[in-house]
Amino acid sequence: MTDPEALSPLLRHIAKGSATTRAHLARTTGLSRSSVSQRVDALLSNGLVIEDGTAPSDGGRPALRLRINAEAGLILVADLGATQARFAVSDLAGAELASGVQELVIDQEPIQVLAWADRHLRALLDTAGREARDVRAVVVGMPAPVEFGTGTAVKPPLMPQWDGYPVPGYFAERYDADTLVDNDVNLMALGEHRAVHPDLEHLLFIKVGTGIGCGIIVSGQLHRGADGAAGDVGHIRVPGCDTPCRCGNSGCLEAVAGGQALASHLTAKGVAAATVRDVARLAAHGNTLARQEVRAAAQHIGEVLAAVVSFANPSAIIVGGALAQLDEVLLSGIKSGVHGGALPLAQRSLRIGASVLGERAGTAGAIALAQERVLSEEGIANLLRIRRSG
Amino acid sequence: MTDPEALSPLLRHIAKGSATTRAHLARTTGLSRSSVSQRVDALLSNGLVIEDGTAPSDGGRPALRLRINAEAGLILVADLGATQARFAVSDLAGAELASGVQELVIDQEPIQVLAWADRHLRALLDTAGREARDVRAVVVGMPAPVEFGTGTAVKPPLMPQWDGYPVPGYFAERYDADTLVDNDVNLMALGEHRAVHPDLEHLLFIKVGTGIGCGIIVSGQLHRGADGAAGDVGHIRVPGCDTPCRCGNSGCLEAVAGGQALASHLTAKGVAAATVRDVARLAAHGNTLARQEVRAAAQHIGEVLAAVVSFANPSAIIVGGALAQLDEVLLSGIKSGVHGGALPLAQRSLRIGASVLGERAGTAGAIALAQERVLSEEGIANLLRIRRSG
Repeated sequence: MTDPEALSPLLRHIAKGSATTRAHLARTTGLSRSSVSQRVDALLSNGLVIEDGTAPSDGGRPALRLRINAEAGLILVADLGATQARFAVSDLAGAELASGVQELVIDQEPIQVLAWADRHLRALLDTAGREARDVRAVVVGMPAPVEFGTGTAVKPPLMPQWDGYPVPGYFAERYDADTLVDNDVNLMALGEHRAVHPDLEHLLFIKVGTGIGCGIIVSGQLHRGADGAAGDVGHIRVPGCDTPCRCGNSGCLEAVAGGQALASHLTAKGVAAATVRDVARLAAHGNTLARQEVRAAAQHIGEVLAAVVSFANPSAIIVGGALAQLDEVLLSGIKSGVHGGALPLAQRSLRIGASVLGERAGTAGAIALAQERVLSEEGIANLLRIRRSG
Repeated sequence: MTDPEALSPLLRHIAKGSATTRAHLARTTGLSRSSVSQRVDALLSNGLVIEDGTAPSDGGRPALRLRINAEAGLILVADLGATQARFAVSDLAGAELASGVQELVIDQEPIQVLAWADRHLRALLDTAGREARDVRAVVVGMPAPVEFGTGTAVKPPLMPQWDGYPVPGYFAERYDADTLVDNDVNLMALGEHRAVHPDLEHLLFIKVGTGIGCGIIVSGQLHRGADGAAGDVGHIRVPGCDTPCRCGNSGCLEAVAGGQALASHLTAKGVAAATVRDVARLAAHGNTLARQEVRAAAQHIGEVLAAVVSFANPSAIIVGGALAQLDEVLLSGIKSGVHGGALPLAQRSLRIGASVLGERAGTAGAIALAQERVLSEEGIANLLRIRRSG
């Protein structure tokens, strides 16, 4: 009984904590007690789960509680942004063992950036006292539209040299692990959902940084769209604006209200601001012009999100990215734009709030994505193969 | 072995045709041959499937092919529109046994409309020579936001008397059947997806009739949103327009480009047009003013859909409703609006086309929805209960 298809549903329940004893697993899956016992024995003997204390029982002996064996594999995360990268090593239970942040210019030859990232990941493995051979998943986040199936960026405006570059191949030569590549805002949406709002069915994560992007959770799952381009709200047109956008169109939300646009507006008005972080800092310190810019941007973002709310009827909009640290200015502007533009019914259960995870949302999402892959049927088949050959 | 949880996956494969022999079911589900045989025997002895000819086999005897027993239950459909209703009776395999169309004024006391609808459904049962006691699902479509879980309309602008009215209760007293209530455009989207594009992951169905609405398929499933309000694109604001809308806002797409709006525009210009059907007829007969109106409306609809495409990155947009019969005028305007406004990547695999099912899309979707419910675990538990007691 080492059939991944039979083991995966049990592992998922154990990982989520939705059923952690043999009796509870039997009730939840509808399998017989003997099938469950057989499968749990296989999970235990293959080192995928461990017994961990006891749970209250309906009578008789207390039941043994199961949990994922955190030592069954490691997860590496390289969350690459336009100007910085966050790295992390976690165990299979999702506990972060080491992490770090580095400055980065992403628009270089991919091979150079990946080699640089891999050096940092190996240094983190050393810090954590772990071995590269135990890595079972590598997750790379990128500020780009990503074809998730192949792990390649598609026509990425911020990093044109990466167009079509097969990122998974780089790591496949170096680790006995699956490599998953995803858009950075998708990872933030997944992280915020899994860690803070696992109960919400439909969630949007809007990132207001250098650019503007949106991660979409539908029925608890990431919606990447037909080409990995879903959530590209930064290129929705803002009524009455015709600022040229780097995408070739004009009047795009990002060209009007993105952090880079606000920095340019301020510079033109004589306030030195090179990046979105400068804008955030100025506004946080009470600079009137900066606060005006953020307020106007928030209103535009809110108007575009009003259309999105009418279309998607989400349960929550989470606002993150460098400008979101100014909660009240950005958030209240976004709220007023949405409230004024969408139908009351589509907002009936809508919450709008700032990201709780903040800068850690992306790595949290990457770890969640890796866990789900490693505990999938395919992932379990890999674990068993490695165990047999190891 | 009459555990609905064990039987449901097999039934779904048999219904979809994705596995119709015992050997194929075993390969597809990962269950052992003996478990599959046991479960198939239970399905056969309970009359849920029947054996129907043979399939080519890998050698040895040809395998017996299984299919859903069409006689295991009946489905009733009342697809209520603003001005007409379509009724249908189908068997559990989805074959339509009888159908009809009736004029309707929907904004009346719900009890009156439902009693009227039930009379028509019973007449269709008579026509088909079937019995009310064999009905296992009733599906009601409505031009309103619907809370799917409870089957109630929520603040429906076209039919305010229905607000919160518990439609399922009406049919529960009359049939031993599940009643499902859904928005009419959701049913059209589901029908077009299941019948014409089952292979597409993400599909939008835009209905341009008296009003404008959108049904959303994400990962093959209907996306209804947090409040059943998803797809309400008719109330997205059109830049530069401030026509008052019946919803209380102004500049809504529906108030600018909906069929009722076009009829009013034409009337104001001296061309008699009371409804969207008049507009469609005039344009189809070459009336220049009518064609101009449709062309302008299509451009506005296309612009709003460009934003939706940037957000959702769908695989296809299907255009239906009374105005869609004028394929080239409406479709080409919508295409040009989308192409000009959304990023190339989000359109890379996008198809835009007219509904193939046309006026039958709603009933097709209703039948598909009912089949999926009846073959779910809960539905099978019901079928077995009725069989035991009957």
